[in-house]
Amino acid sequence: MAVRIGVIGTGMIGQDHIRRLTHVLAGSQVVAVTDVDAARAQEVADGLPVPAMTCATGEEVITDPGVDAVVVTSWGGSHEQYVLASIAAGKPVFCEKPLADTVEACERILDAEVATGRRLVQVGFMRRYDPAYRAMKEVVDSGQIGAPLIMHCSHRNPSVPGYYVKESAIVDTAVHEVDTVRWLFGEEIVATRVLVPRKSRNGGELQDPLIFIMELESGAIVDDEISVNIRYGYDIRGEIVGEDGTVALADSNPVIVRRDGALAGKIPADWRERFIRAYDIELQEWVDTVAAGAQPTGPSSWDGYAAQAVCDAGLQALHGGERAVVALRDKPDLYTKS
Amino acid sequence: MAVRIGVIGTGMIGQDHIRRLTHVLAGSQVVAVTDVDAARAQEVADGLPVPAMTCATGEEVITDPGVDAVVVTSWGGSHEQYVLASIAAGKPVFCEKPLADTVEACERILDAEVATGRRLVQVGFMRRYDPAYRAMKEVVDSGQIGAPLIMHCSHRNPSVPGYYVKESAIVDTAVHEVDTVRWLFGEEIVATRVLVPRKSRNGGELQDPLIFIMELESGAIVDDEISVNIRYGYDIRGEIVGEDGTVALADSNPVIVRRDGALAGKIPADWRERFIRAYDIELQEWVDTVAAGAQPTGPSSWDGYAAQAVCDAGLQALHGGERAVVALRDKPDLYTKS
Amino acid sequence: MAVRIGVIGTGMIGQDHIRRLTHVLAGSQVVAVTDVDAARAQEVADGLPVPAMTCATGEEVITDPGVDAVVVTSWGGSHEQYVLASIAAGKPVFCEKPLADTVEACERILDAEVATGRRLVQVGFMRRYDPAYRAMKEVVDSGQIGAPLIMHCSHRNPSVPGYYVKESAIVDTAVHEVDTVRWLFGEEIVATRVLVPRKSRNGGELQDPLIFIMELESGAIVDDEISVNIRYGYDIRGEIVGEDGTVALADSNPVIVRRDGALAGKIPADWRERFIRAYDIELQEWVDTVAAGAQPTGPSSWDGYAAQAVCDAGLQALHGGERAVVALRDKPDLYTKS
Amino acid sequence: MAVRIGVIGTGMIGQDHIRRLTHVLAGSQVVAVTDVDAARAQEVADGLPVPAMTCATGEEVITDPGVDAVVVTSWGGSHEQYVLASIAAGKPVFCEKPLADTVEACERILDAEVATGRRLVQVGFMRRYDPAYRAMKEVVDSGQIGAPLIMHCSHRNPSVPGYYVKESAIVDTAVHEVDTVRWLFGEEIVATRVLVPRKSRNGGELQDPLIFIMELESGAIVDDEISVNIRYGYDIRGEIVGEDGTVALADSNPVIVRRDGALAGKIPADWRERFIRAYDIELQEWVDTVAAGAQPTGPSSWDGYAAQAVCDAGLQALHGGERAVVALRDKPDLYTKS
Repeated sequence: MAVRIGVIGTGMIGQDHIRRLTHVLAGSQVVAVTDVDAARAQEVADGLPVPAMTCATGEEVITDPGVDAVVVTSWGGSHEQYVLASIAAGKPVFCEKPLADTVEACERILDAEVATGRRLVQVGFMRRYDPAYRAMKEVVDSGQIGAPLIMHCSHRNPSVPGYYVKESAIVDTAVHEVDTVRWLFGEEIVATRVLVPRKSRNGGELQDPLIFIMELESGAIVDDEISVNIRYGYDIRGEIVGEDGTVALADSNPVIVRRDGALAGKIPADWRERFIRAYDIELQEWVDTVAAGAQPTGPSSWDGYAAQAVCDAGLQALHGGERAVVALRDKPDLYTKS
Repeated sequence: MAVRIGVIGTGMIGQDHIRRLTHVLAGSQVVAVTDVDAARAQEVADGLPVPAMTCATGEEVITDPGVDAVVVTSWGGSHEQYVLASIAAGKPVFCEKPLADTVEACERILDAEVATGRRLVQVGFMRRYDPAYRAMKEVVDSGQIGAPLIMHCSHRNPSVPGYYVKESAIVDTAVHEVDTVRWLFGEEIVATRVLVPRKSRNGGELQDPLIFIMELESGAIVDDEISVNIRYGYDIRGEIVGEDGTVALADSNPVIVRRDGALAGKIPADWRERFIRAYDIELQEWVDTVAAGAQPTGPSSWDGYAAQAVCDAGLQALHGGERAVVALRDKPDLYTKS
Repeated sequence: MAVRIGVIGTGMIGQDHIRRLTHVLAGSQVVAVTDVDAARAQEVADGLPVPAMTCATGEEVITDPGVDAVVVTSWGGSHEQYVLASIAAGKPVFCEKPLADTVEACERILDAEVATGRRLVQVGFMRRYDPAYRAMKEVVDSGQIGAPLIMHCSHRNPSVPGYYVKESAIVDTAVHEVDTVRWLFGEEIVATRVLVPRKSRNGGELQDPLIFIMELESGAIVDDEISVNIRYGYDIRGEIVGEDGTVALADSNPVIVRRDGALAGKIPADWRERFIRAYDIELQEWVDTVAAGAQPTGPSSWDGYAAQAVCDAGLQALHGGERAVVALRDKPDLYTKS
Repeated sequence: MAVRIGVIGTGMIGQDHIRRLTHVLAGSQVVAVTDVDAARAQEVADGLPVPAMTCATGEEVITDPGVDAVVVTSWGGSHEQYVLASIAAGKPVFCEKPLADTVEACERILDAEVATGRRLVQVGFMRRYDPAYRAMKEVVDSGQIGAPLIMHCSHRNPSVPGYYVKESAIVDTAVHEVDTVRWLFGEEIVATRVLVPRKSRNGGELQDPLIFIMELESGAIVDDEISVNIRYGYDIRGEIVGEDGTVALADSNPVIVRRDGALAGKIPADWRERFIRAYDIELQEWVDTVAAGAQPTGPSSWDGYAAQAVCDAGLQALHGGERAVVALRDKPDLYTKS
């Protein structure tokens, strides 16, 4: 009865999803895994309560008749290949961010999925499943603050690894706000800018922080502070300013401690602590959809494609210094329902 | 591989646990159910993805060789019978509050469990699994506020059903703080008082609110405001006052809305909204323990017994008007580890 | 044009009021001072922008034709004498807490003032002038939370001086809540209790904390936590529980700092920091009343008397261990307006 | 002994300052007033406890030997004239915003004041006296959040009067953040931009909201949301993002009300409610400085000049659509101390 899942890529995020599918969520079983590091894949497979099969390639996982659905957690450059193969096999596929690493690759996925006439792909933009962002969207959709005009975002990390470069601020960090903003406002981003503030000593050579500006179809403007070496914690903030009021993510400390002259709440140390529930809900909803034989309701190939196109414009703005327009193809009917 | 669970009692809470075991948690399957209303049991059994067997009696559920562990969600008066039968069958049993409806019944369960030399029983005091209370306990245990001296609690419900009577304030409402306080302070309650404030017009004939006072072994004092017709929402508050500081449950609104001259956060409508995660974590940890063949780590028979004894003293204080001492037998070694 | 004020007692609080009347408030001038320590009085008098006269006795200050109104900030045992002399002289008098140090002395003041047919005395219960308590009273009076049924108070000091004894918790600390509660609820306190929790190591020999329970005419109950060695700061908390909702003093930090894994607001170090505005407003309103030739609108002799009577009952409860009834004489018409 | 003050301009803000100097603050007396509406001036003069003299012109007020210091609260276009006359008379002058209505006029004031070799002018940027902004500056200056890199501001009004035009958003609204930012960061603003979001239906023809971007000498960037028809209240927000943490203005509700499913704090209705204390402190500190014969410590002519220059650049950005550089002359030594 459980959905039998094959996982391609058993690195950190792959292992985390396997743990979730095995020990946290109802109704799924990981039955096949693969990885470029075959030994790692074997170790993960053997560590499961019911050991999974290991496959030599992602394609073997996808086409195995014992696999009902696929989770792609390999490195970004390989996503297109496995998503296309899953579509070819007619199997639901959950693909971690990014959908693919170029706009063109995303377009090939769009074409393939549209050709099947059925949504098979879900992209791992997990913030849509965060209870706080969902509450924020409810308030906006209710109309109680009027039309949304501006959004202020802050995306703060205590530090980033050594391989994080200037462009990462857009494609790895701001990309989360890109998807969140499109979803919250229910419209496309049409242009971007990048403002470059005074550099933090904590970032070494890296230009940090940045302010990423997004313009939406309606004219609404989003400013997104990207501070990735701010030391004090992982802090995701957001406030939508409407015509008649605002809605903001609240600070969510479980307890307040009064001590030493201050009253204080704890700030999450990292994204796991902040968004762990969002990952759980995201994957449970996807598993439930697959079990029910329904099309996915989460972020689509179109969402993956649009995010990629906005990031492309963001990079252009980062390097060019001025406003960069986002070019999107026409939206296929397949994606207009949700 | 899944833990095969039999559920005794398919009323509201029983159905909720069945939903949780089936659609939310990993590693469990409900394989047998029973209820005094056989038709309802049948309907619940048939509604499962893999239909469960229905049994004529709880004892049949318990002794069925296909059942690994038992969940008791029948009416309180029947708990003793099913918990004793589970102990007799040597099967782990999760029993919803109360463990039994008299102190004497609780003592019979203690005797039976102690005789087996092994903890088999877990009682459904779910607040111990609430992330906020857990964070509070961590702060207390860390010593950062010094020794705990006082706790202020408020237990507020918007309204209560018609069958809620004067005594319910102690045995149905305050009982949650009774267990929480014993766990947070790590010591027994030795005496109680009840203060009777001005009566709310919202409670009709009912004396509402009440202030329930608990004295602990160390001398620490807890005041617990019980307001069960306060209309505005379900609100559970708590602050522990230590020698050097305090720790309080925070207000946990996902978003803050600014509108109409105010900034406001939402208050939960009921206990489901407030404690749903605690129920999930509680039952997942129990299932995991059963799967691992380990003894339960959650609230024990002793905890169920002690809560009952404190409530007895609470009722005596409620009716007698003054301080009522809590009488506890010596604690068996079986329960001194955790 | 300025109100010419004589100050009796130039200790800490006297000097603070003189600074306030001279450098902060509009419309007043300190023209005469006296103190048991004549040298100190002289020094204070000489330090004013326009040096004040020094008098040998309080009575000289009161009867001097150049003095319009009197401020009594001498030690508590001398208050009766100076308040009675001010009444005899027909001059407005602002008397710091307590009005007098026994219930009988308060009654003699009541008798004298009633005999004049005019309110001349205001007692320095400054919390009634705190903007937060005033906002709280507005909410209660508006009826939006229904009838008030319970109030939870906490009165926390980081530490107390060596002369603070067991009884001080009632007569020096809880006395503030006594007046505040009478004013917020608009009714008298009819009985008290004292609960004695586990003792803090910070208090040495002193029994600290205490919980002081007050019962009101309507049946409403107030619990007041007195913690006077809690180290972390000066923290005054309060929440009134009504039939339909509650109103609580908010934490009032001017800024929130996010740093080192926490978001934190500062807690006041002492009562000056917390209530400085209340003292300013209290004395400005009194000066304005005197300048206008009107009767005072602030806490009256009756309020000073009632507070004393409640504290007497509090001491009885502290020593006797059980409920102590408050005995009040009939309220003279003079005090029934406000 | 009181500082004798002449007030030029008895409109709304003039009357408010006269009330403050007369009924709230210590040590000042309004002795002379004038207004273009002589009848209004007379009425105000007569309404004082000690009626003030009325003068035919501002110059008469300034040169009257009975006037120690001048307060200019006439319309902006006349400020230069009265400030220059006060400097010529060698008298301290407190001038409401703006210092003058053109950069050139401000420069003439700078020249005149520098020629006297002594600071005589204070400009009415009252936010520097707001306790919350002061606490924010203390945190920044302490170094505990590292170097300040970014500031997020929001300036929200429920509505604006009919004469408020597109440019008002810069010269009447954002001008407050212009001064606050220069003071908080302790450096000059070197360039501005204006981003134009989707228009609110509440603003009619007016482009509202706007996002005003300021670049500082250090490279720090400030974004300032200007929303002047947001209905819900008057809301001034600010957060400085440093290298290691942030400091933000807190919400400052005196009480929290729990009612109808929400916990809510009140938002100020207008700037009076939000900043009344800042006005009091600002003017008291100025009066005290004048009384002491010292130079003013508040916002100087240079601050008035720099704010005007930034607003000029802001208007250029508003109309031109791109980055506009701020041109400042060299800073005279007179202004480098504070």
